[in-house]
Amino acid sequence: MSSKRLTLGSINQHVVAAKYAVRGELAVRSEQYRAELLQGNPNKLPFSQVISANIGNPQQLGQKPLTFFRQVCSILENPDLLKAEGVLVDQLGYKPDVIARARTLLQYCQSVGAYSASAGVPQIKESVAAFLESGLRFFFLFSLFCVSCSPPAVRTPNDIATGRDGFPADPSHIYLSGGASSGVNTLLNVICAGPDSGIMIPIPQYPLYTATLSILNAQPVPYYLDEAKGWGTDFESIKSAYAAAKARGVDVRCIVIINPGNPTGSSLPEEDIRAVLEFARQEQLVVLADEVYQTNVFVGKFTSFKAILRRLQQEQPGRYDDIELASLHSISKGMVGECGHRGGYFELVGFDAEVEANIYKFISIMLCPPVIGQCLVELMVNPPREGEPSYEQYQAEYGAIYKDLRDRATALHAAFSQMEGVECGEPQGAMYLFPTIKLPVKAAEAAAAEGRTADEFYCMRLLEATGVCVVPGSGFGQRDGSLHFRTTFLAPGIEWVGSIVQFHQGFMEKYR
Amino acid sequence: MSSKRLTLGSINQHVVAAKYAVRGELAVRSEQYRAELLQGNPNKLPFSQVISANIGNPQQLGQKPLTFFRQVCSILENPDLLKAEGVLVDQLGYKPDVIARARTLLQYCQSVGAYSASAGVPQIKESVAAFLESGLRFFFLFSLFCVSCSPPAVRTPNDIATGRDGFPADPSHIYLSGGASSGVNTLLNVICAGPDSGIMIPIPQYPLYTATLSILNAQPVPYYLDEAKGWGTDFESIKSAYAAAKARGVDVRCIVIINPGNPTGSSLPEEDIRAVLEFARQEQLVVLADEVYQTNVFVGKFTSFKAILRRLQQEQPGRYDDIELASLHSISKGMVGECGHRGGYFELVGFDAEVEANIYKFISIMLCPPVIGQCLVELMVNPPREGEPSYEQYQAEYGAIYKDLRDRATALHAAFSQMEGVECGEPQGAMYLFPTIKLPVKAAEAAAAEGRTADEFYCMRLLEATGVCVVPGSGFGQRDGSLHFRTTFLAPGIEWVGSIVQFHQGFMEKYR
Repeated sequence: MSSKRLTLGSINQHVVAAKYAVRGELAVRSEQYRAELLQGNPNKLPFSQVISANIGNPQQLGQKPLTFFRQVCSILENPDLLKAEGVLVDQLGYKPDVIARARTLLQYCQSVGAYSASAGVPQIKESVAAFLESGLRFFFLFSLFCVSCSPPAVRTPNDIATGRDGFPADPSHIYLSGGASSGVNTLLNVICAGPDSGIMIPIPQYPLYTATLSILNAQPVPYYLDEAKGWGTDFESIKSAYAAAKARGVDVRCIVIINPGNPTGSSLPEEDIRAVLEFARQEQLVVLADEVYQTNVFVGKFTSFKAILRRLQQEQPGRYDDIELASLHSISKGMVGECGHRGGYFELVGFDAEVEANIYKFISIMLCPPVIGQCLVELMVNPPREGEPSYEQYQAEYGAIYKDLRDRATALHAAFSQMEGVECGEPQGAMYLFPTIKLPVKAAEAAAAEGRTADEFYCMRLLEATGVCVVPGSGFGQRDGSLHFRTTFLAPGIEWVGSIVQFHQGFMEKYR
Repeated sequence: MSSKRLTLGSINQHVVAAKYAVRGELAVRSEQYRAELLQGNPNKLPFSQVISANIGNPQQLGQKPLTFFRQVCSILENPDLLKAEGVLVDQLGYKPDVIARARTLLQYCQSVGAYSASAGVPQIKESVAAFLESGLRFFFLFSLFCVSCSPPAVRTPNDIATGRDGFPADPSHIYLSGGASSGVNTLLNVICAGPDSGIMIPIPQYPLYTATLSILNAQPVPYYLDEAKGWGTDFESIKSAYAAAKARGVDVRCIVIINPGNPTGSSLPEEDIRAVLEFARQEQLVVLADEVYQTNVFVGKFTSFKAILRRLQQEQPGRYDDIELASLHSISKGMVGECGHRGGYFELVGFDAEVEANIYKFISIMLCPPVIGQCLVELMVNPPREGEPSYEQYQAEYGAIYKDLRDRATALHAAFSQMEGVECGEPQGAMYLFPTIKLPVKAAEAAAAEGRTADEFYCMRLLEATGVCVVPGSGFGQRDGSLHFRTTFLAPGIEWVGSIVQFHQGFMEKYR
């Protein structure tokens, strides 16, 4: 018996119950391996590098940040550089728009070392609102792309990033956050009022949701996505999950939609978004639209919940006025990939003013999101425009990252297609593939003997043999009897893909 | 009746109940005034600037960041600068140690845009451990200063920052965090297990504690600090508050000590720290030492809880082995003042391994603290050393900030001394003064008519008349019948101090 005040049995049991596989045992083990390799591999691990395919972390895997963004940030960190503008321009290749933007952002925030307002620097919120509103340019350029070229030309993704909905956005309802995760945490903290509160979440899901609900002692109300339709939203599944939860007395308050999807990047078609909003209206559910992968789209196109809600409100005045929608975005994903800077925002539509005041109070307790991350949000929503000095380089870099991601996804998908017992839908977007694996019975028995699920067992053996770290499907949720794993397609090269193929073959033979 | 799903009555009532005055109504109003002034003062406010003395935010008030830190950060943001090392050195004045440090930190984190390990970049945790351990240099130089000069010479504060306890620290028990606030949030989430869990907190306190406990639906067990002794810890008050809480069935689990104190910067003498640790041992309380102001000390010297715990363990082997201590630090305060970067860390001593595993899991759900903030933690704990190229400039800047803070505190204190009905202890450190105000009965009546406490009423009128934003004592807690306000002494100039004096005189006359 421990003599400590805090023991596994005495601490917050809701924290103990929370599961977060993305950074769980496998991730910890992979970090140990990485440290061993740095120390000269004393234990003779059978691989020379660890590939962290467990988490969407592009820059850790060598993705170079966007030059314009980081040049601006370097000045924000050291404003003294502005005293040597000539040196920056003539000798370091900083273009005038880099310097102008840095000056503007410094005016906005005074110093990136100063706390901002809790919901973010006011002018940055205005930039976000302008981005959300200026949809015409987006639709125009997007159509241009659709007609003119396939596969996408270099200019497309950025054009997507320069505007979105074509409907006004109000800066006072925009809240900057430390990544989208922090925004989700805020919203769930406010929405969940006790153990009866239920939140509908897609399965498979990003485990932030179940982990946070566990800590809040609220109830996840899972609805299954349809693997046969590329993990699309299955509306019947939503309705039956809702009905079952209601029947057992759950106070279902909110539906979470991850669009484009994580783990699979599937984009919801407009009619599905309409159906979800109609359902939310009927059942009075808050809609939480996690839209962090909005630019990671290979198939179809991204349409925001906000845009569709506004269209519905135009089409049928009055009918959708009471819908409460929160939509989230982030600098961590897309072609920006600035995870380590922890930036993001959420927009609230139709929320009660007193509720918003409490959301504001909640975030103010943690003071403010990182200010340099806020500045990166501004850069993301307001990148160099055509005709500006940094435009071409920005476009070229942005387009190359987009193309790289698609090419890697395709290569990885091709490898999975050759593997016995592995089935994987075509890559649609996000940063992940989520193949089904069918494992021999003996593998399941060996897993049970270790106290693991079969997919955990498989992923652990994969890590030990190859240094490739992926996440078992059980970490995201999967239908009973099915097994999956999630891997990012961010790591460069093909050697690691080959090592997965080889491992898989050996594994299947061993447990046949 | 609202037709919304989420209303004040239906959302999380623990969030509704939370209070956080530092960023409350007064702060919001002050931001509105600031925006009005920017728009040319259409409503003819009777002041030309807003002075945000409500929050310790040095760089918002013009404190220049430390050059060495920000030069390093500029390279971290744009590593391409390393390709032009000659230009950096010859034309931009970057010293070789700036470049070397940036290279090292980039090796550690790969990119400041990549997620790090959840508890922070491993090598940065090692730097923190080295800082905590290397106390000999600190004690030597501190003694040197104590003997050789009073008031402090320029070199002192930095020497304090180059080492601390003289006892080993283990990097695996160090957790980087997004400011100390995030660390406190993590620890309270894990420690509080339900509505019976009680946490002892000092009054006056930093309202993060009561707000977080409210959200967690746990019980604050307040103990009053002794205003007559410069807001020192009153041990009898701790014991009686504990006994009273136990008697009403509270499961008191933890005692929070803010040392040096916020709002007043008083430093606990060693014997008080020993007494608290002995009490924690007897009653099996976790000790949470909020030590973010450890370098903001004008009177006496800072001694860490960790150092005293280790001394006690040496003196009486076995007796203190079960003590669980968490101590927190931050880049937001001290002479560093990098609030907007959201960096900090906490060290755990004596925690159960399974409990630490749950703390790790909790922080991993939010992925990782901002990486550039982590790098600033490294710079804070490992600043330029004597003989290194950036040493002199760093020392000069650091010492000048220290001196400025002390001078401003002294000037503000002198102003308060002249004000009728205002009493204020001598400034001891931190970034705040916390004067008592005695207001006329008519003022209390006018406040009640507005539904405000008298100190809120006073602070609101002060803001309206002068643009100076301070926080009413009720936001921190104060003994019944006493009134206070907290003001930072960070704002430059003396005009704003004069405006407080003038307002106060008018206020007292109006309500006499």
